[in-house]
Amino acid sequence: MTQRIFNFSAGPAVLPVPVLEEARENLLSLGKTGIGVMEHSHRGKAFIKVLEETEAACRALGNIPSNYKVLFLSGGASTQFFMVPMNLLGKSDTADYLVTGAWSEKAVSDAKRYGNVHIACSSKDRNFNYIPDKVTYSDKPAYVHFTSNNTIFGTQFKSEPTPPGDAPLICDTSSDMFCRPIDVSKYGLIYAGAQKNLGPAGVTLVIIRDDLVQKGAVDIPAMLQYRTHAENDSCYNTPPAFPIYVMGLVFKWIQSTGGLAAMQKRNEEKAGKLYSYFDQSKLFKATAVPSARSLMNVTFVTGNAELDDKFIAFTKERGMDGLKGHRSVGGMRASIYNAFPAEGVDALVAAMKEFEAANA
Amino acid sequence: MTQRIFNFSAGPAVLPVPVLEEARENLLSLGKTGIGVMEHSHRGKAFIKVLEETEAACRALGNIPSNYKVLFLSGGASTQFFMVPMNLLGKSDTADYLVTGAWSEKAVSDAKRYGNVHIACSSKDRNFNYIPDKVTYSDKPAYVHFTSNNTIFGTQFKSEPTPPGDAPLICDTSSDMFCRPIDVSKYGLIYAGAQKNLGPAGVTLVIIRDDLVQKGAVDIPAMLQYRTHAENDSCYNTPPAFPIYVMGLVFKWIQSTGGLAAMQKRNEEKAGKLYSYFDQSKLFKATAVPSARSLMNVTFVTGNAELDDKFIAFTKERGMDGLKGHRSVGGMRASIYNAFPAEGVDALVAAMKEFEAANA
Repeated sequence: MTQRIFNFSAGPAVLPVPVLEEARENLLSLGKTGIGVMEHSHRGKAFIKVLEETEAACRALGNIPSNYKVLFLSGGASTQFFMVPMNLLGKSDTADYLVTGAWSEKAVSDAKRYGNVHIACSSKDRNFNYIPDKVTYSDKPAYVHFTSNNTIFGTQFKSEPTPPGDAPLICDTSSDMFCRPIDVSKYGLIYAGAQKNLGPAGVTLVIIRDDLVQKGAVDIPAMLQYRTHAENDSCYNTPPAFPIYVMGLVFKWIQSTGGLAAMQKRNEEKAGKLYSYFDQSKLFKATAVPSARSLMNVTFVTGNAELDDKFIAFTKERGMDGLKGHRSVGGMRASIYNAFPAEGVDALVAAMKEFEAANA
Repeated sequence: MTQRIFNFSAGPAVLPVPVLEEARENLLSLGKTGIGVMEHSHRGKAFIKVLEETEAACRALGNIPSNYKVLFLSGGASTQFFMVPMNLLGKSDTADYLVTGAWSEKAVSDAKRYGNVHIACSSKDRNFNYIPDKVTYSDKPAYVHFTSNNTIFGTQFKSEPTPPGDAPLICDTSSDMFCRPIDVSKYGLIYAGAQKNLGPAGVTLVIIRDDLVQKGAVDIPAMLQYRTHAENDSCYNTPPAFPIYVMGLVFKWIQSTGGLAAMQKRNEEKAGKLYSYFDQSKLFKATAVPSARSLMNVTFVTGNAELDDKFIAFTKERGMDGLKGHRSVGGMRASIYNAFPAEGVDALVAAMKEFEAANA
């Protein structure tokens, strides 16, 4: 078996080893069925059990109220960018978007096709390195949309915004879902592409309040209506069965390691080690302002692009991968999702110390 | 290791054992990368190589001309039902649909939202148990759409219809793609959900001629435009990486077993054994008319629902699964896709003989 290295990829990203081992055991036969997990009919008992267990683990983890549906869709968060307004934004309605990064901007651009968009705040003026304090809502928004964690820019909301009146809060949590406890009852709709914190690419978790399922447009293709998937337990068409299965294993793994509160503690410890190092380093500095620092994606630079590249090469020699930052920020990005091991963070801190000493 | 049983599921369906074994080997580390196949960034070298090899194997297998794009999308064939007309059917245009089963009907129902639909033929009058000889096209169809194999009803086109003029031919080949050689140059667009003959659920193969990519609508969300995916080599957003990887292994497996002509021969032999048995049996009979019999989904009945159930239970005791027919046909359905082993067909024939002797 090849030795595993420290994978700092922003997504698809590292998965828990016990999850990978369990998936491996079930590829040729799911339990004692004699049929591999990818080969079971989505209408058969074995897969329905997988689906039910995945949903149950998700509901238990997130303490999800019974008036919310848990759906397993495909097409990634990018498909939610247009499914949300297609379903919930009437032509003359206005939706409020909090713009804190590239993904929020893409969500805005799709929403504009279906109705009016009000930008309730934006941190674009400083290349999205902060989360705005001040949010100005429109009069009666159809919904309020935000991106809880900005993978590219390394920023994260510390708590959810409070929409005006009874406007439903909608959140793209693709890169920080279940990194900490979440009060689902504050949301109308939560969506997350799995491939960062929840599982492999190919499945999108959608948690939607019943009234929004009902309120959704009816004059759009069945596949694009939330009600279709809600009424058919995510099996209107063949769902992405294997990604769902692995996501279920990830949910169970989170439970087995103490649930979301324990996960938050570990994530704070991991991220804390990195941010503490930056705060005393003369070479490396975090790009996000302290109040907005993400637990999941830690973006940092030396301030010298050549030195950044040298450092990335330096980490590769030490069994670390995926540290190159996104081109719109440059420098480095350490994505340290739930499944990323604490030892990997220690290894990165050690590498930074060594590199800083050698390049003082 | 649990003994594998004969899996006659209509989809998700049986996959080749060497494919499952190779996937298993790469779950914790893709080759010597130290990062599992599901954990690699879709922008990284390792996954780009997977993507390129998958496309190359597909192109080699299907002898796909260079003026066609090969795309790996998500959302299943059900998403193509609306992507096709959203992109290619103007409001005042007419598209011709050949209706040979439940999936064609769903495709029609989505197309009607975007333009006019002309039903060029239908076999609904006899519960879709045949493929119509006579097809009446409209004057200048925007395209002609058909379903090459009807999973539920066990029928299959022996060759593709000939559209009038230069109308592009569009085909849902979800349940028989690469079961035999295919002349891609006769088509404008081919799509196939992977989970029947090509891989696991979660990826849809789309082969589209360049002029149709260009012709596609521009006033729809980026994710729903073929050009977006064509211009970004299926990586506009995070693609369903693992299903794509497994599909690539399946393509290579088909190549390694002799390519499509050899595959057709094996499929004809497998299906031939079943149809030959029905043609002399006094108990079992095929539901599809002889000229339309599918190589992939073999539907049959005893004519007595109770006896059907008894036979299905009888096969389960003998290590066979998934033989229950779809409710709209009843009886039994043996799905014997490319990866289904000849021994499984022999086992089914033996079971039918034994059952027929005992229930004469």
